[in-house]
Amino acid sequence: MKILHTADWHIGKKLAGFDLLEDQQAIFQRLVKVAQDEKVDAIIIAGDLYDRALPNEAAVSAVNDMLFELNRKLNYPLLVVSGNHDSAVRLNTGRDWYASTGLYLNTELDQAFDPITLGDSQFFLLPYFEPVAARLYFDDESLTNIAKAMVPVVAKMQTLFDPGKRHILVGHFFAAGSEHSDSETRVNVGGLDAVAVGDLAPFDYVALGHLHSRHALDAEKIQYSGSLLKYSVSEVAQEKGVYILDTASMTRKFIPLAPKRDVQHLTDSFEHLSDPAIYQELDRDAYTAITLTDTEVIPNVMAQLREIFPQVIGLDRQHGVQLTDRPTVAKLEKLSPTELLGDFYDHVSDSELTTAQMHWAKQALTTAQKED
Amino acid sequence: MKILHTADWHIGKKLAGFDLLEDQQAIFQRLVKVAQDEKVDAIIIAGDLYDRALPNEAAVSAVNDMLFELNRKLNYPLLVVSGNHDSAVRLNTGRDWYASTGLYLNTELDQAFDPITLGDSQFFLLPYFEPVAARLYFDDESLTNIAKAMVPVVAKMQTLFDPGKRHILVGHFFAAGSEHSDSETRVNVGGLDAVAVGDLAPFDYVALGHLHSRHALDAEKIQYSGSLLKYSVSEVAQEKGVYILDTASMTRKFIPLAPKRDVQHLTDSFEHLSDPAIYQELDRDAYTAITLTDTEVIPNVMAQLREIFPQVIGLDRQHGVQLTDRPTVAKLEKLSPTELLGDFYDHVSDSELTTAQMHWAKQALTTAQKED
Repeated sequence: MKILHTADWHIGKKLAGFDLLEDQQAIFQRLVKVAQDEKVDAIIIAGDLYDRALPNEAAVSAVNDMLFELNRKLNYPLLVVSGNHDSAVRLNTGRDWYASTGLYLNTELDQAFDPITLGDSQFFLLPYFEPVAARLYFDDESLTNIAKAMVPVVAKMQTLFDPGKRHILVGHFFAAGSEHSDSETRVNVGGLDAVAVGDLAPFDYVALGHLHSRHALDAEKIQYSGSLLKYSVSEVAQEKGVYILDTASMTRKFIPLAPKRDVQHLTDSFEHLSDPAIYQELDRDAYTAITLTDTEVIPNVMAQLREIFPQVIGLDRQHGVQLTDRPTVAKLEKLSPTELLGDFYDHVSDSELTTAQMHWAKQALTTAQKED
Repeated sequence: MKILHTADWHIGKKLAGFDLLEDQQAIFQRLVKVAQDEKVDAIIIAGDLYDRALPNEAAVSAVNDMLFELNRKLNYPLLVVSGNHDSAVRLNTGRDWYASTGLYLNTELDQAFDPITLGDSQFFLLPYFEPVAARLYFDDESLTNIAKAMVPVVAKMQTLFDPGKRHILVGHFFAAGSEHSDSETRVNVGGLDAVAVGDLAPFDYVALGHLHSRHALDAEKIQYSGSLLKYSVSEVAQEKGVYILDTASMTRKFIPLAPKRDVQHLTDSFEHLSDPAIYQELDRDAYTAITLTDTEVIPNVMAQLREIFPQVIGLDRQHGVQLTDRPTVAKLEKLSPTELLGDFYDHVSDSELTTAQMHWAKQALTTAQKED
């Protein structure tokens, strides 16, 4: 059986104020094409369908349409869990009807113990949950974090294993690459509430959402699909796409999905970036974070850059502003106008005024004082 | 066939800050019992399931549970339209799956032209819609309000009539009891955008939501069920409940539903209302609006009344404050302290200071000035 594994759609997300809905609809259509080309038998969506608990109507409409297209138009069984960005209660709407057409959607912990069998595999759909849900479910006050809670969760799932099937966990949590030895290790992998991969060993495959990089975890049987799109500048180097899992051979392959608009990070001088010979070779349509290598003050720099890169999503300087070493207001008040200017110039450009610049400044100041 | 007709649930509504969810869940259970006792074949919910377009999670969960109970546990076909308080987009979630179990839910105008046939009747489920939706659907710029839009809506529905069936319209709009003669009348019944009952004549029955009183319209074949509960002080005299429509005889009966807590409006003196001999005979558990007949200032009046009626939802004076006749600040500044006090007393109690009161006031003022 061939399974497409995707996660972290974050429908409704904005990037620096730019609404990504069109990009999300475009990449979704590419995902649909991959599902069809690969003739998959089912699709896993491992949480964070929405970007926020209270999505706007356009996002609600988009997710509804996407689930409808995959499940009702194209008849794919869907294996879906809610993520931490979803409202479990809101996403749960319609759940009791969805299963009739093979849309299996879990939003509560207890639902995870009702596995779905499709073909050669048994799927355990574990939504994102808070530790308190596990404490209540297992009546065990010691389950103070997800790492601890996963132990009885996995143990209970094991009791439900059909020995003739593959056992696949669909989840939305932070797993870390440590084979834990004791409870302390389990709790504190990297100082975070991470599930140790060793605790997931009973499964033939774990299809995860939560972390946006598909390389977030170095564990063959436990995979993050990564997000549908690059959702922050920190993800510019990540290749986005979906996994196709073959449950017969238990092998997988990654299929990249090209976005309508990429997210890129350019580090260069303003002179270069505003030179047609250079920028015409660049992807001007991308959502673009820019780090300028310049030290000079550039008037209207954002407006000028937006003429070239309409989707500027961030602008900073390589030689960043040192806020921590700023003089106090009391000190600043004692400075002369030219000393203040010099300090300001240093502050914004991380370099000193040249002699010529200081000369011009003094001239301008004298002129201004005369007009006063 | 027996049909239960309800509307205007407004789940999630608060009354003067009091969350009505428990009251709504209680009255819903009484509605369920009526459906069972009366052995109804289907249930109409004519809009405003939610109180607001963005209901909180508790309200979402409650509505989901109610629809689940009626449709999946008790197997009633449901005929549901969205109202102006619902978000059509949000309520639409799951719609394409609901019909498989006989939960027919319409949230868009075009869906109304796909009638549902159950037993001897054909149901046209017309959600609340904006005139622009009709303009787009009929490609007719002249449809500038609901009254005008209803003409082609009804005409189109008539073309879909199955002659062997009853024709029942489920809607959520303002209908008024005028047999219109021309378009001007139709547009301006009572100065509002009201649909004239004459325009609804083709239907054997029109089951409406929108107005909260079941007596809002004096038209035998066109009925508002009224809201599930009294949702404002203006509704205290209204008996709430549901209609049971018999489509064979085209007769109906009203079945009252007693709320967990009533809404009442008491007009009396503070002395009476705080007298145990009197208040013990009253419904102290009700949501209570109080109009005091007193003219004296009563210290801590709200706190004292809440000791007796914990759910006070409003407090005013029968001889209300006359804000319009208040002197201007300029005039007030010219008054002496005792004149100011007299004015204030008149303002809050609608009566003049007695000679004794004025004497005490002057004494207190003299004492205060000495201490100054």
